[in-house]
Formats: sequence, C-alpha cells, structure tokens
Amino acid sequence: MRFAEFQVEQRIVAGPYEVLEDEVLSFAQAYDPQWFHVDAGLASQGRFGGLIASGWHTCAIAMRLAVDAALQGSESFASPGVSRVRWPCPVRPGDRLRLVATVLATRRSRSQPDLGILSWRWQLFNQCDQEVLDLEATSLFDLGSKETRS
Amino acid sequence: MRFAEFQVEQRIVAGPYEVLEDEVLSFAQAYDPQWFHVDAGLASQGRFGGLIASGWHTCAIAMRLAVDAALQGSESFASPGVSRVRWPCPVRPGDRLRLVATVLATRRSRSQPDLGILSWRWQLFNQCDQEVLDLEATSLFDLGSKETRS
Repeated sequence: MRFAEFQVEQRIVAGPYEVLEDEVLSFAQAYDPQWFHVDAGLASQGRFGGLIASGWHTCAIAMRLAVDAALQGSESFASPGVSRVRWPCPVRPGDRLRLVATVLATRRSRSQPDLGILSWRWQLFNQCDQEVLDLEATSLFDLGSKETRS
Repeated sequence: MRFAEFQVEQRIVAGPYEVLEDEVLSFAQAYDPQWFHVDAGLASQGRFGGLIASGWHTCAIAMRLAVDAALQGSESFASPGVSRVRWPCPVRPGDRLRLVATVLATRRSRSQPDLGILSWRWQLFNQCDQEVLDLEATSLFDLGSKETRS
C-alpha cells in the first residue's frame, strides 16, 4: 500500500499465521527463556496447562502480518514507538492468528511536509476469535525521498 | 530475583548484548522484512546509512536481558502488557546494548493476595550511551502456587 491509500476507519486484515511449537521454542530460547515459554514439561503442569509464546513473539508475528498486508511496497521507513500493548490471552503452539489493523489517524507532519504519520490499532485474534494482542502503532512514511522501495 | 527483592527506585543493569548483523537479518527476515532491515545494499543508501534492527528485535533483546538479570528464578509467570514503547534511536549491527531497568512500583493484588504486580521501566542504551528503547513493563508473579520454578 501507499501512504495515500490509508483511510481513517479502514480495516486491513491479514493471516492466518500458524504458530508452530518449534518457532515458539526457538524465539523464547533466544529472547525470553522463562520456563513457561521453553519447557513443555514444566509448562504442562503450570497455570496455562502448556507452553505459551513470549508476548514479544506475538508482537513480532503481528508485525510480519502488517508488513505483508500493508507496509511492503509503501513509503514506510521507521516507527517512533507503540503504545498500550496488551496480551489479553496467551498464544499457544498450533494457534492460527489473524491480524485486524484499524486506521485511527493519518496526517502529514506540519513541520516536515514530506513526513506521513499513520496511527493504527493492531489486534490479533486466534482461531477461537480470542483476542491475543492489542496495541496502537505509529508508522512513519517518507513521501518526498528517493529512498522509497517497492 | 524473588518478587520480594524488587524495591521502588531500584536499578537493575544488565548486558552488554552484542547485536550481530546475522541476527538483525534473520530476525527481520522472519518478522519485519522491510528493506531497511533486510537489505544492506539498499539500507546503505537510505536515511539511516545502513541496516537497522527491527524495533521488535530491540524489545526482544531487552526481554532477554531482563530475564537473565531479574526474572530467571523468580515467581514471574506472565505479563498483561507494556506501555509507552519508544525507539528514540536506531539499533545497528555491532551495537552493544545495556539494559537499565528501574522499579516504579511493586504491590500485591487486593483481590488476589498471591498475585504480585511489578511495574518497571526498561531502557536500553548503546555503546555511545544513546537511548535506543524506553518502555514501561508490567510483570506478574505467582506468590502462592507450587508452580514457581527456579
């Protein structure tokens, strides 16, 4: 998509992304090696009754879906941050996650007219329609430079 | 650490974590395949003058440092979310990142006395003392269950 194509209240859906146990384990072994993310045996006796994915892994999956559905081929070049990241339900191996991205606001910077600013809400839902991620992202678009890539 | 060891205003430092180009590329190829994260040639001509890491990769590195320095061996079992995630400067291959985690608040849930709630600020700094990540995390601790793991 191009920056000009994002419209307030627009919904962009993507997925499903199938979460494999091997990927849950390898992400968590690298970045979040707590027992409920990396030890299936201990996790089966724990509060969630089995392995759950790191919350950061869930965020990374949402990013992948947002890139595939919207950012690839856009003028996107960076993000200053995100807010209000919530993980209301755990993600488990075998889950199939869908992204629902809703455009909240889109504007050009007053001080830098070539800078496009997109605010959007990302929600991930599993195959039972349980929400597993909810956040507000800000994405920046370079509307004047030659560095836009397809 | 145990939940009882976290004290308001306490600072926990960890790292450095050396960010390797291969890791920047493999994380981004999986989760954030935008050109400035995955194509060193294009990125060298772009706004940042070279590859930069996905912001989610930066978050994942902070998590790893927080686990190693504080959460491993604690009663930590989950997080409801984080807020105010900012990426003020890019992370580049070769960077060496330090975590400074500052305890903001620690309390037991009124409705669930066995539930410990920790609010803490995580900042990552690179080898030039530039801040590359700033967020507020909430971590939950199970203070009554047998499921605590070392």
